[in-house]
Amino acid sequence: MQLPADVIEDRIENWPVARLATSRSDGRPSQVPVVFARASGWLWSPVDGKPKAERELARVRNVLREPRVSLLLDEYEPDWTRLWWLRIDGEARVVRARPETDPEVAEAVEALRAKYPQYSRVPVLRDPPTLLAIRVEWISSWCAGLDAVSPAGARS
Amino acid sequence: MQLPADVIEDRIENWPVARLATSRSDGRPSQVPVVFARASGWLWSPVDGKPKAERELARVRNVLREPRVSLLLDEYEPDWTRLWWLRIDGEARVVRARPETDPEVAEAVEALRAKYPQYSRVPVLRDPPTLLAIRVEWISSWCAGLDAVSPAGARS
Repeated sequence: MQLPADVIEDRIENWPVARLATSRSDGRPSQVPVVFARASGWLWSPVDGKPKAERELARVRNVLREPRVSLLLDEYEPDWTRLWWLRIDGEARVVRARPETDPEVAEAVEALRAKYPQYSRVPVLRDPPTLLAIRVEWISSWCAGLDAVSPAGARS
Repeated sequence: MQLPADVIEDRIENWPVARLATSRSDGRPSQVPVVFARASGWLWSPVDGKPKAERELARVRNVLREPRVSLLLDEYEPDWTRLWWLRIDGEARVVRARPETDPEVAEAVEALRAKYPQYSRVPVLRDPPTLLAIRVEWISSWCAGLDAVSPAGARS
């Protein structure tokens, strides 16, 4: 069965992690776990603030060439009656701007800091931050049954 | 830093879930969480044994057209010093055969049943089972630090 609409909303708002799939130049899919927050009608995922290694650049490079991406939210549990997943097909753009000069980025950074208290302790948002902004185009979902749809807040 | 080689081995052997990325006909990436087990030098991931819905067919269709796939293993933790991920670039093939007539499939099914006691209770392996067999071509990994590399068995 599909996830109920209110559970989909709850997961997109509150689930702490997604797996981002992008396409490489040779068409091969690539994946990386990401954090994300919703703001201004977009999903915002920061590109890591540490000195940029190949993997961060790859994610950005892939999106600049092929903006169509996939975000997968799910939770593995040994009890398979509780399994669920939620997949977002979206279009991503790369945003590099300072919160002080870009209200949209200010809102995104605020949403990320509100969702992830970790940002108060680790310098993950660079100056200026690089963010992927993902527009949700299509949502697919599945769950094994109603056991899977307890609120995310209770378990995350 | 990268994951140490013995941790990579441990995760591939014991981690219970991976996210599989395939490419759709229009080049768009797609993702789904999968279980998998290693046998005969391949990673085997069963395609769900329930009456086939669109999502299972999509996964198989994608692989038949474009065998290059990605498997992502990772664990989200609120303590970001413990984060790690492990990405496998591989080539997949679709295998439909009975364990009684195909020794390779017999080994794969045995490995899946050994790794997942759930298969004794839920009829997930069809007759004949449909499996994706994935050949590991390249492994990339990352971890935030040594805190991330405690044995998987202690936490899965």
